[in-house]
Amino acid sequence: MSAEQRVDDAMLGDFDTAHRALAERAREVLESNWLGHATRPAAGLYPHQWSWDAGFIAIGYARFDTRRAAAELRSLFRGQWSDGMLPHIVFNGGGESYFPGPDYWGTERSPYAPPRPRTSGIVQPPIHATAALRTFRHATDRDTARALLEELMPKLAAWHGYLHRERVRPGIGLVEIWHPWESGMDNSPLWDEALSRIVPARVRDWVRADLDHADPAERPTDEDYLRYLHLVDLFRELSYDPERIRAATPFAVADVLMNTLWVQANRDLASIADIIGADGSRFTAWADEAAAAMGEICWDDTLDVFVDFDLVAGAPICTRVGAAFAPLFAGIPDADQARRMVRRLHDEVGEHLGATTWMVPSFDPSEPGFMPTNYWRGPVWINVNWVLYQGLRRYGYHVEAASLRASLLALAERSGFFEHYDPVTGNGHGADRFAWTAALVLDLLFESGADDARTA
Amino acid sequence: MSAEQRVDDAMLGDFDTAHRALAERAREVLESNWLGHATRPAAGLYPHQWSWDAGFIAIGYARFDTRRAAAELRSLFRGQWSDGMLPHIVFNGGGESYFPGPDYWGTERSPYAPPRPRTSGIVQPPIHATAALRTFRHATDRDTARALLEELMPKLAAWHGYLHRERVRPGIGLVEIWHPWESGMDNSPLWDEALSRIVPARVRDWVRADLDHADPAERPTDEDYLRYLHLVDLFRELSYDPERIRAATPFAVADVLMNTLWVQANRDLASIADIIGADGSRFTAWADEAAAAMGEICWDDTLDVFVDFDLVAGAPICTRVGAAFAPLFAGIPDADQARRMVRRLHDEVGEHLGATTWMVPSFDPSEPGFMPTNYWRGPVWINVNWVLYQGLRRYGYHVEAASLRASLLALAERSGFFEHYDPVTGNGHGADRFAWTAALVLDLLFESGADDARTA
Repeated sequence: MSAEQRVDDAMLGDFDTAHRALAERAREVLESNWLGHATRPAAGLYPHQWSWDAGFIAIGYARFDTRRAAAELRSLFRGQWSDGMLPHIVFNGGGESYFPGPDYWGTERSPYAPPRPRTSGIVQPPIHATAALRTFRHATDRDTARALLEELMPKLAAWHGYLHRERVRPGIGLVEIWHPWESGMDNSPLWDEALSRIVPARVRDWVRADLDHADPAERPTDEDYLRYLHLVDLFRELSYDPERIRAATPFAVADVLMNTLWVQANRDLASIADIIGADGSRFTAWADEAAAAMGEICWDDTLDVFVDFDLVAGAPICTRVGAAFAPLFAGIPDADQARRMVRRLHDEVGEHLGATTWMVPSFDPSEPGFMPTNYWRGPVWINVNWVLYQGLRRYGYHVEAASLRASLLALAERSGFFEHYDPVTGNGHGADRFAWTAALVLDLLFESGADDARTA
Repeated sequence: MSAEQRVDDAMLGDFDTAHRALAERAREVLESNWLGHATRPAAGLYPHQWSWDAGFIAIGYARFDTRRAAAELRSLFRGQWSDGMLPHIVFNGGGESYFPGPDYWGTERSPYAPPRPRTSGIVQPPIHATAALRTFRHATDRDTARALLEELMPKLAAWHGYLHRERVRPGIGLVEIWHPWESGMDNSPLWDEALSRIVPARVRDWVRADLDHADPAERPTDEDYLRYLHLVDLFRELSYDPERIRAATPFAVADVLMNTLWVQANRDLASIADIIGADGSRFTAWADEAAAAMGEICWDDTLDVFVDFDLVAGAPICTRVGAAFAPLFAGIPDADQARRMVRRLHDEVGEHLGATTWMVPSFDPSEPGFMPTNYWRGPVWINVNWVLYQGLRRYGYHVEAASLRASLLALAERSGFFEHYDPVTGNGHGADRFAWTAALVLDLLFESGADDARTA
């Protein structure tokens, strides 16, 4: 047991008994997924390292084990491409049992891909600078944490540099995704219309591995999968060359959650630069650029939320998803927009299970197509709710924030650490013992003092 | 002694007695500069690792010790920045005794600079892909050499990606340098006019370290040094941000030798991509782009050579330097241009010390300002002559090539392995026991079979 862990055993002692037990269970979930160098999201379904999972997992470790948080980020960045691209999967070993595995991705076609570890060829949202800064801020050993920031700075800068160079079109100012998987919200109804325009070039001649581990009713359909793989095939044929993909992709979306995390990550990277004496002015400029663009392009004055923009169709995507409220996290709305967003969030979109229990489903339950147990088409996800909790606090809605936090903790206490939860029943679905759920529950547990002070 | 070395002891045995002794002395010079992880250019004056030195040194090692060549390149790339920039100096340890040392450079201002090893913040010509490919081609253990190419591919791709992204202006097509040191030919008369326009912002308040180790008459003047440091000060103040430097630098030149090596390195990187199954088409495109631009912008139909172009003044730099003939190396001239170049090179610019001995000085001896012992203002440099030798062979001028090779070997036999040589007397000047001189003499020694076959 490390020095950090001993310190934090003492900190865990500050929790009340129920929360202490919850924290111990959460830590045990992380421990059971620890592979010696990184944390898998879950056994079976997710045996490798995923990009935004690693970020959220590090945010949890940051509270009680700086070295684990550092290891998590360091391991992920071993898979970084030399053009700065941080792939969405870093495979452990051969990855033969996963589909699509490294041989399917065939990233050796890109001159920028490292020979090992093997990786995928697309990205996920950039939560990593935010995770790194939180690791520093919660660390008890500041010198070690500062050295970590010095080590991560060029890697994070290259990652952000890639996103700004390759994913922000001049005149748009927003990061764009080229695959639904890049949003992290794989089968969200957000993508239905854009995907419907894609005619898959071939029939199904592969076997999905996800269905060996999960109920098909909780996973994307085969029809979706055909289109996901059509895009992967295209990117592989283009040798993962961003310039060629940008010109050829039939899927290009400026997503609200992605851009929210991009704005905040740039602000956090500028803070990291300040801490270590580097010039972070470009990251502040990138944050300002994207925040302004979100206000101009994504704000929907009727829905009172920010909506995605389909760059191929040249039209907004007015699908009512929980992630539409994410911009509160990065301070993007003005005070009036925030007030209107919070009203909608709390009174309408939030699913209330009782007088004090509420949380935000991935898709509005009043919409046709809402499926309470199907992946990103209805279930509650802890990471999105964690983002919304931070956003409520940021704008001073401390009562709502405290209530959301208490609800999420109650959900984990009642149902365990699942990948996602049915917003109607509160039952867990998808993978059990899911790492980021445990990590973010831990982070929320450590928030107690802050909330109590503000809501008192 | 490694397996490779034993193999090559046998190969050295193929040389005649005089050449075998020369090869042994050259190897001993390399060995005396070997630091355990990389090779310094020379004791005293150059105690760190330099970028294009490392490339030429690896080209020498490639002939008899694949692992040393690999170590040389691997060590250099440890200093690569995360935006792909390969710095011109990678400092060993603190570098306190060198000026300007790492504290003067202050590269920690850039978010892309690694915390260690510490480095400078400018580049040198990209000979590295060429060195890597030659290492592979001469290797006896092809599997190890192929793994080296797989390891170096993303690093080389990032380096070339940086040069193409940050140093090639749209509509120009040529790589530009922002500091005379970036050419590798620090005080060449090529830069005199461009430097004369710079008014140094401050007086001299530093102490040059180079004059502790070298005769001031063989080194750049204090006036030059004021301007060199003025540019470093500017780049440091701009946090080494390429976008800001490009907008602000008073010095921007498309140099012939730099672009020649850029063209060839891109062709060699495309070959490396082929060998390991990656997509190298972009490197071929970059080579074609620069070669075409050299034909349009740099060819001087009166001088029968390629000349530099000053991007600030918007004018060619028609200074008669030996490096003006370098484009033969990369196959850039057409057959008629090559014929005219070779005539000038052999008959006029080449310095003939006897009936069969000739070599090319860094600056035309008939020009005012020719200084036979001052650095890049007159002396013969082995690396430029090696480039010209390769160029003569490429265009089928095998008699001239064999004669130049024999002359260079005779020079080393007579005067030793110096940094540079007086073209009139043949005496060595600058640093003694200079690593790239030894490395390239070794490479030339190993060429014997090829030349003999063609000139027979």
